[in-house]
Amino acid sequence: KSDNSNEQVRVPNVIALVGLPARGKTYISHKLCRYLNWIGIKTKAFNVGEYRRRACNLEEEGENEFFSPNNARGQKIRDECAKLAIEDMGRYLDNKEGEVAILDATNTTRDRRKLLMEFCRNMMHEPPFRVFFVESVCDDPDIINSNITEVKINSPDYKGIMSQEEAKEDFLKRIENYRMQYEPLDEDHDEELSYIKVINAGKSFYVHNVNGHVQSRVVYFLMNIHLLPRSIYLSRHGESEYNRIGRLGGDSPLSENGLNYAGKLREYFEKEDLDDFRVWSSQKIRAAQTASHLKDLAGHTEFWKCLDEIDAGICEGLTYEDFEARYPKQFAERDKDKYHYRYPSGESYEDLVARLEPVIMELERQSNVLVISHQAVLRCILAYFTNKNRDDLPYLKVPLHTVIKLTPKAYSCEIELFKFDIEAVNTYREKPQ
Amino acid sequence: KSDNSNEQVRVPNVIALVGLPARGKTYISHKLCRYLNWIGIKTKAFNVGEYRRRACNLEEEGENEFFSPNNARGQKIRDECAKLAIEDMGRYLDNKEGEVAILDATNTTRDRRKLLMEFCRNMMHEPPFRVFFVESVCDDPDIINSNITEVKINSPDYKGIMSQEEAKEDFLKRIENYRMQYEPLDEDHDEELSYIKVINAGKSFYVHNVNGHVQSRVVYFLMNIHLLPRSIYLSRHGESEYNRIGRLGGDSPLSENGLNYAGKLREYFEKEDLDDFRVWSSQKIRAAQTASHLKDLAGHTEFWKCLDEIDAGICEGLTYEDFEARYPKQFAERDKDKYHYRYPSGESYEDLVARLEPVIMELERQSNVLVISHQAVLRCILAYFTNKNRDDLPYLKVPLHTVIKLTPKAYSCEIELFKFDIEAVNTYREKPQ
Ligand SMILES: Nc1ncnc2c1ncn2[C@@H]1O[C@H](COP(=O)(O)OP(=O)(O)OP(=O)(O)O)[C@@H](O)[C@H]1O
Ligand SMILES: Nc1ncnc2c1ncn2[C@@H]1O[C@H](COP(=O)(O)OP(=O)(O)OP(=O)(O)O)[C@@H](O)[C@H]1O
Ligand SMILES: [Mg+2]
Ligand SMILES: [Mg+2]
Repeated sequence: KSDNSNEQVRVPNVIALVGLPARGKTYISHKLCRYLNWIGIKTKAFNVGEYRRRACNLEEEGENEFFSPNNARGQKIRDECAKLAIEDMGRYLDNKEGEVAILDATNTTRDRRKLLMEFCRNMMHEPPFRVFFVESVCDDPDIINSNITEVKINSPDYKGIMSQEEAKEDFLKRIENYRMQYEPLDEDHDEELSYIKVINAGKSFYVHNVNGHVQSRVVYFLMNIHLLPRSIYLSRHGESEYNRIGRLGGDSPLSENGLNYAGKLREYFEKEDLDDFRVWSSQKIRAAQTASHLKDLAGHTEFWKCLDEIDAGICEGLTYEDFEARYPKQFAERDKDKYHYRYPSGESYEDLVARLEPVIMELERQSNVLVISHQAVLRCILAYFTNKNRDDLPYLKVPLHTVIKLTPKAYSCEIELFKFDIEAVNTYREKPQ
Repeated sequence: KSDNSNEQVRVPNVIALVGLPARGKTYISHKLCRYLNWIGIKTKAFNVGEYRRRACNLEEEGENEFFSPNNARGQKIRDECAKLAIEDMGRYLDNKEGEVAILDATNTTRDRRKLLMEFCRNMMHEPPFRVFFVESVCDDPDIINSNITEVKINSPDYKGIMSQEEAKEDFLKRIENYRMQYEPLDEDHDEELSYIKVINAGKSFYVHNVNGHVQSRVVYFLMNIHLLPRSIYLSRHGESEYNRIGRLGGDSPLSENGLNYAGKLREYFEKEDLDDFRVWSSQKIRAAQTASHLKDLAGHTEFWKCLDEIDAGICEGLTYEDFEARYPKQFAERDKDKYHYRYPSGESYEDLVARLEPVIMELERQSNVLVISHQAVLRCILAYFTNKNRDDLPYLKVPLHTVIKLTPKAYSCEIELFKFDIEAVNTYREKPQ
């Protein structure tokens, strides 16, 4: 079954990173890949470094000498690895396995970029592949140093092979080896290309020749992400009256237990003691009631309709048992493909993701935020941050009376669960076998 | 009653245009103003040229000599007009009349921009005004010439005062007068400012220090608009079974008349004979049925759930008479403030606008598109293109069996109505007095 969003973006897109080592290319690739897949554009990243590591003995060939422009053998192996990655990428798009391929490589010379353009043209795909370059330029030594300390010294190139100090020094030399040949994208020389330059981790951008829906989304996304440390907290409203009697949807108030949770949630955030803390709640009574206890702790409390629970259409107010008894066919269909199943006169998980896209974009821009919402909605948000696929998404565990704390790290998101000791019904239904 | 969106954007924003004459500053101001108001951010544009025209006798002081850096009197009047506009703008934001003020002036010197920054600081508003510069740079003589021919020679500075040829020549001299003092925004000198440079009408962009939600939206919007000629066509589905019996919402198929309309619509678009033509339909049966007749004429047909009709919640399937009889209080409330009124378990017009924002953004990017949707949804889209306010929006006339053709012109949108000679019920309810 094809998604709505697919229709719009039939044109295969290549997104090719450009930049010296430790400029966040892999970081950007991962993050873009996760975002595009989540909004329904099938995407895969091809990391040339991984091809190299598979081709080489790292004990001998992970060090900076390997990356010197004077090391003919190193150069040859690196060229071959790039070629393999590009070919795999071409097949991936040509076979329509996916719609966007991200080429995570340095691509620092004009020749290498030309080669990629020619390769894409020679695929003779109809419509032709669109290539978009994403260059990360950074001359802020603090950012570079912290990138090296955060991720490079733990890379498989170094881990168990040399000490952290040695690794750091070696990596700085690797950067210098690349710098010798580096030709940044240029307003004059690269007039024909489509690209974005991300300058100093998002302080400035130069954008040229943006072509089509995917590229426009990529640009908007890259302009909204940031690297400042912060956490995102997800919580369902406290237990509601409807939860207690097992009914779907509706707009009932909190139960005794639920009120209790709202109070404890406040205590939790008093201890967290965050700067610049915001609370976003759905507009349902049970969520707003939960949020009301935090009002004075938050710089802002906002109520978003698009955080409201999935609309169960004709099943609103029913229990699962009622649903199964009244609409057995619908019930079975939902179990077959829960992500795409749309309640009659209601919504599917796929619909939810579409309406949550602005929330994700705004979350990317923010600092510390607590999102108070509902089981299905929080599954979608959690899947975005933890990179879960569409089959697993509708079965993620988001229990009542539990705070999920998400803290972005170099390539992923740390998850912590705080389960409060307040009774609540279990609203989880296992995936049928 | 305050809007949801307001909460997010409490910080007053000044958007100050920068650029030589005929660079689309007024065009951008109008368009941004319309977009921001439509998404619920109250915005007003302050055009310094209008202050000047009010202050001067145009017979004597509309010509290029007035704009010469050597004309002391001209310089003095222009400075005073800028000052008046900036003061009005300051009051507008300070009084919380609105959230965004657009300063539509040339602002071509660093001094003038510094003055503006200082003025904003001196307002001592808490939180301080955020200033964002939008510079339009254009060295494409074709664009400049067509701008002058399209709008400048008909400006009140010239109309009835000199011939079109003379006006054109005079305007080119005015540009040269400004160019003598022009200091573009600069990566090195303007490090502290927040700004976007729009280069050659959207071919490239340079973006620096984007700060906050409003600025982020402005940047995204400016990156998606284009100047290529095209038309947007709006049509409701053909008359449906539910239309015939006066019921709200539902998902009924087309009536005999409705099917008839779908056929004629096809003939209409055969005659229009458009390149690169797309059809976007809602996912309701009556809309999809209408769209199906156009399938082979369109390069793409897409079905968007967010084009579905307003969700009338508990009133789905009722007639207006049922609604009034069953829920008299609700019915009266809706008449009082139709824009903000939300059907219980359903949506308001305000909710619709929020879910239609991605449609508008994508429409801005596209070429020729026909949108097949529903009365309430099309009112929102029509209000965007024709700059109608929230009070009028829910009462706009979007009759059945009628194509509304919108063609963007210099500062506005041309509207043409094509009423087909096929019977249909009237679904319009007048605004009660
Ligand atoms: N735009 C950016 N500019 C600089 N650093 C960034 C940027 N985006 C992310 N980072 C940081 O980069 C670090 C990760 O570096 P990453 O491994 O992605 O670099 P790389 O360019 O892929 O290096 P290599 O060429 O060695 O593969 C993260 O710690 C992240 O915080
Ligand atoms: N980014 C742009 N670059 C160049 N031209 C543009 C741009 N955006 C819109 N235009 C064109 O500009 C024309 C309108 O010019 P406009 O009156 O807005 O110029 P202006 O900069 O306000 O001039 P003035 O300084 O005389 O007020 C329209 O015909 C429109 O097509
Ligand atoms: Mg990498
Ligand atoms: Mg103007």
